[in-house]
Amino acid sequence: MLKVAICGASGYTGGELLRILASHPEVTITVVTSEKSAGKRVTDLFPNLYKYHNLIYEPLSVGNILDKADVFFMALPHGESQSVVDFFFRKGKRVIDLSADYRLRDVKVYEEWYKVPHKFQGTLKKAVFGLSELYRKKISRANLVANPGCYPTGAILGLYPAVKNKLVDVTSIVIDSKSGTSGAGRKSDLEYSYCEVNEGFKAYALARHRHTPEIEQELSAIAGKPIRVTFTPHIAPFDRGIFTTMYARLMKIKDTKQIIEFFKETYANEPFIRVLEMGTFPDVKHVRGTNLCEIGLIVNARTETLIIVTAIDNLMKGASGQAVHNMNLMMGFPETMALEAMGLFP
Amino acid sequence: MLKVAICGASGYTGGELLRILASHPEVTITVVTSEKSAGKRVTDLFPNLYKYHNLIYEPLSVGNILDKADVFFMALPHGESQSVVDFFFRKGKRVIDLSADYRLRDVKVYEEWYKVPHKFQGTLKKAVFGLSELYRKKISRANLVANPGCYPTGAILGLYPAVKNKLVDVTSIVIDSKSGTSGAGRKSDLEYSYCEVNEGFKAYALARHRHTPEIEQELSAIAGKPIRVTFTPHIAPFDRGIFTTMYARLMKIKDTKQIIEFFKETYANEPFIRVLEMGTFPDVKHVRGTNLCEIGLIVNARTETLIIVTAIDNLMKGASGQAVHNMNLMMGFPETMALEAMGLFP
Amino acid sequence: MLKVAICGASGYTGGELLRILASHPEVTITVVTSEKSAGKRVTDLFPNLYKYHNLIYEPLSVGNILDKADVFFMALPHGESQSVVDFFFRKGKRVIDLSADYRLRDVKVYEEWYKVPHKFQGTLKKAVFGLSELYRKKISRANLVANPGCYPTGAILGLYPAVKNKLVDVTSIVIDSKSGTSGAGRKSDLEYSYCEVNEGFKAYALARHRHTPEIEQELSAIAGKPIRVTFTPHIAPFDRGIFTTMYARLMKIKDTKQIIEFFKETYANEPFIRVLEMGTFPDVKHVRGTNLCEIGLIVNARTETLIIVTAIDNLMKGASGQAVHNMNLMMGFPETMALEAMGLFP
Amino acid sequence: MLKVAICGASGYTGGELLRILASHPEVTITVVTSEKSAGKRVTDLFPNLYKYHNLIYEPLSVGNILDKADVFFMALPHGESQSVVDFFFRKGKRVIDLSADYRLRDVKVYEEWYKVPHKFQGTLKKAVFGLSELYRKKISRANLVANPGCYPTGAILGLYPAVKNKLVDVTSIVIDSKSGTSGAGRKSDLEYSYCEVNEGFKAYALARHRHTPEIEQELSAIAGKPIRVTFTPHIAPFDRGIFTTMYARLMKIKDTKQIIEFFKETYANEPFIRVLEMGTFPDVKHVRGTNLCEIGLIVNARTETLIIVTAIDNLMKGASGQAVHNMNLMMGFPETMALEAMGLFP
Repeated sequence: MLKVAICGASGYTGGELLRILASHPEVTITVVTSEKSAGKRVTDLFPNLYKYHNLIYEPLSVGNILDKADVFFMALPHGESQSVVDFFFRKGKRVIDLSADYRLRDVKVYEEWYKVPHKFQGTLKKAVFGLSELYRKKISRANLVANPGCYPTGAILGLYPAVKNKLVDVTSIVIDSKSGTSGAGRKSDLEYSYCEVNEGFKAYALARHRHTPEIEQELSAIAGKPIRVTFTPHIAPFDRGIFTTMYARLMKIKDTKQIIEFFKETYANEPFIRVLEMGTFPDVKHVRGTNLCEIGLIVNARTETLIIVTAIDNLMKGASGQAVHNMNLMMGFPETMALEAMGLFP
Repeated sequence: MLKVAICGASGYTGGELLRILASHPEVTITVVTSEKSAGKRVTDLFPNLYKYHNLIYEPLSVGNILDKADVFFMALPHGESQSVVDFFFRKGKRVIDLSADYRLRDVKVYEEWYKVPHKFQGTLKKAVFGLSELYRKKISRANLVANPGCYPTGAILGLYPAVKNKLVDVTSIVIDSKSGTSGAGRKSDLEYSYCEVNEGFKAYALARHRHTPEIEQELSAIAGKPIRVTFTPHIAPFDRGIFTTMYARLMKIKDTKQIIEFFKETYANEPFIRVLEMGTFPDVKHVRGTNLCEIGLIVNARTETLIIVTAIDNLMKGASGQAVHNMNLMMGFPETMALEAMGLFP
Repeated sequence: MLKVAICGASGYTGGELLRILASHPEVTITVVTSEKSAGKRVTDLFPNLYKYHNLIYEPLSVGNILDKADVFFMALPHGESQSVVDFFFRKGKRVIDLSADYRLRDVKVYEEWYKVPHKFQGTLKKAVFGLSELYRKKISRANLVANPGCYPTGAILGLYPAVKNKLVDVTSIVIDSKSGTSGAGRKSDLEYSYCEVNEGFKAYALARHRHTPEIEQELSAIAGKPIRVTFTPHIAPFDRGIFTTMYARLMKIKDTKQIIEFFKETYANEPFIRVLEMGTFPDVKHVRGTNLCEIGLIVNARTETLIIVTAIDNLMKGASGQAVHNMNLMMGFPETMALEAMGLFP
Repeated sequence: MLKVAICGASGYTGGELLRILASHPEVTITVVTSEKSAGKRVTDLFPNLYKYHNLIYEPLSVGNILDKADVFFMALPHGESQSVVDFFFRKGKRVIDLSADYRLRDVKVYEEWYKVPHKFQGTLKKAVFGLSELYRKKISRANLVANPGCYPTGAILGLYPAVKNKLVDVTSIVIDSKSGTSGAGRKSDLEYSYCEVNEGFKAYALARHRHTPEIEQELSAIAGKPIRVTFTPHIAPFDRGIFTTMYARLMKIKDTKQIIEFFKETYANEPFIRVLEMGTFPDVKHVRGTNLCEIGLIVNARTETLIIVTAIDNLMKGASGQAVHNMNLMMGFPETMALEAMGLFP
């Protein structure tokens, strides 16, 4: 059995890792860390995870836990993750980092958007961006995977076939995302208290959300030239899911059916991508609890604009599910192991 | 007291008209019609409207109700409204039509998008588009007002100062709207049942929503040249509210503060428009139950894009509140009469 | 104009007082206090209350604000309210206390349930319990009114006619209440964050909720003998409203219709009580934003049990609306002034 | 592989059976029936169940499907199930009926509450009530299992140890249940449309809900004497879950800890029952997607009342999960096969 540690396991993504891995036949959880909840049981924080009744949080002491696990999932805040990841990586462990610290390949861009220096540039160079549909091979050989952000996952997967096949004018891309409230994390914050969020809808971090450079990095790599995008995230009154609506001016091909074919071909062998039939569009409710990214698209002929929409579960494909997918690739397990669940509906 | 009839008063907009007008000191409701609910009390359909316990629905027989009212609000389905509006209008009554039948000035456009012929083109020519911020004077002299659609209200009010002042490239406009579920109307439809909508989020009517030509008609009139827009509506799990996020390429001015000034000047005397301070953005939760349109904006300097967001209550400013505003203008009542309520929060 | 101060005006009940009083023609708000938010505008905390843009929070310095107002609403935490209320009361001001500090007439009971001593027993003796349906006359002559708790309001109003008319065995009363989440107050508490509450339902404070002695005090007074009740509160995923289901063994009369008549007679002249017709039951959604208490009841003949259900808006009839009602009574204003609104639906 | 048919597979319980059985290693679905949706794919009705893309609904023709399956799940409306169940049962098939048609052993009681005659009393006598915690042995030998109702499941499991151990006065039982809206089924009904349910809370079917005799039948059997209960169901704005609060007068033992011990002993070997520690109470959010029944309890010493609360997922333990548990028992599969999932949270 593969021994797994989860550092920072008191939040929603940590809890989701525990939930997924409970049904993974090759894995056993040996360490969960939390500073605030050290000494408590997992079930004190997650009454739903009753099978972990005997698993106790401990403080994140890298020396103490080094020998207790083979794979380390990092669900720490941005900035805090840097040194811990570097430590385990240099000790030869396999590390999957759910923070943003190793996602941006250009240190300057990281420091500009996150306002902290990056102190481990050598390690950063070894990190592979963990979007398996783009980097499957590299991930399977990597020791350090930077798990993508939730918004970038839905946005890049939606735009990848269009940008790769040069279907759209890449200077015209608009990305409008709507996230469930679990995306804000598990925290005591008036802004995310029930009565402030419920029956509300708002945009936030306009023109400055930190997932912007991550989306741009990957789209630029696909296009082979620098791309800038306009990205607006919104917070919506539901628990899980990100719905992303994307707009780009079409170049030559302007037929919905034909473009759907491009998408289907691109993702033909992907176990977690579902390109929907013409006239069919996704709903976050249908992918809840799954590792899927569902994609729908249509051409707006009157404005010669391609509209692409994607739906993911932000805690699964947007975070912990994708992290387990990456672990499966790194360890040579079947890709979909522990990630087979269909959506819980309603 | 002004005698008011509401034709089609069993849906959410009809109920909202009743709720608003209950506090209007110059008005008395004399007629409510509903085919299905004829003979029932208003309180049978709207237990909240308990003060209307003695008001009984009757079938819509134009001859019977003609003499019972001075002003007729029409909350009938599109297509059905045409002839009824024409009848009351030709009889010299004041008519406020909440359907789409008299909104589009070009009959061809109407017939193309609504798939029914328009049989009353003479009357159509007399109709004034009831967006008071654009047509206040005409409305105050009109006998027939076509109350704007809910999406067009939030979109046009957000884009008007930018288009009017030639701040943006009008070929680049993208409008992404998120509506509460009451926008779908009050009906027995599995698609809008609780467990299908709750915890979900989806786009619908992509590239073909009927509010598109209404938005284009008004923006074209403002710009003085034909404009086409890309418009995508979404349905979200809350009762009331439309949040609209708009994107357009900037022309010359690229300073958020300066553009906010343009917006503030444009709407300086508008009782129901609130242009928010820099860095502040609206939330549908804060305008619930009000006739306000709140507007926030920011320049995305990296992509030279103006992002404008608006929040309205779709049943108030997006329908019945705006209709009462129009009645106040037509009758010479104070504009804000019965529309003074601040938002019910939380 | 009557000058009004609201001490502790940053929470939901304080915000609701501001919203209600904005439409009160006899009142002007002169003081709002908040320790944490001193110096901020009301609109910084309540974007919905835009008409109070120029009203600034100040710290609660009793000396500074004494002369600025005639009526003081106290929306402070339990325990903190005691001395402030006492100060203004002894200075001859009219005080309406929304905390629990002056509700329980027996000091021992207060100290047992609230775990703090009561230091102002002289003032306590002058306080009138502010349930207007029971104490209208006393309230109209009072200088200090202890506004009832939210749960007690729905429970006492539901049971009053049954207990008063000796319809039920008072040793058998079970009260099962379901509250919207705004009842927990406006605070940064993980337990009340969106993703913890949404899609959940739970009981809390079982067998020990502090509203129990308040319900018992009033029912005992009505019955003329000590009564104990079993009371269970629950928290539910909606913003506003308390739904209370009450059970008691019937004594003699066992006919639903006849008991409804008793209830109708008891509340015949009450502007805010609606006893519903046989077979009709309330829904918190229909009283949202109103000062109503709606009551439905039925006899379960098979078990000889009377089932009474009530619905109120916890922030209105359960707190701030009732407080304004009390102010109207104390000042001789029409009872329903500023409290006329019908329910916002949907 | 065991061949399984689901008759009436277009509703929420049918969809849930499909979702659960997709991960059952011993089962293959060979037939799904629906009159309205005959010819459609499962994915047309349940986009979440994408793995069933090639499974097509067919009309319920008993002759056509008889040989296609070994086990028949019946998710038909009450009354319609009678004859179909009888047919398959007499043909020697194993039948699990999710309707109420074979739950009530006394035909008179069935006919009184359901207002239809029972035409298959011989078959009725062979039916076993499918609450596995009470009838495990009988179920394992049965060919016809009547799967319990959702409310009875939560109520009987909560009361069973108390009634069995004679802890409470069985004439005093009050059962107050709060159900998520999926309990109303999947249907186009205005009453259950989003805007009517959301932000609301109400009781329904007071003193006359059809699950009452089912609860009484089982509690009477446990007690060895006739018991009547007062049962009130409520509908709440969440998708899944039933929370039941139960009240009964205590007899001798009045210590919470001791009673919890009784409960723990009673359910010591039950894989799906969790008796929570003292001071801990369940939340429907923590059992969502699981087959668990979580139980908390406390003694209200002041009124000598035992308060028991249970939480289940109405579609799992309250319907389809319990049905699969029964199939596992009938077929000799491990009890928890396909039912191991922990709660999806948040």
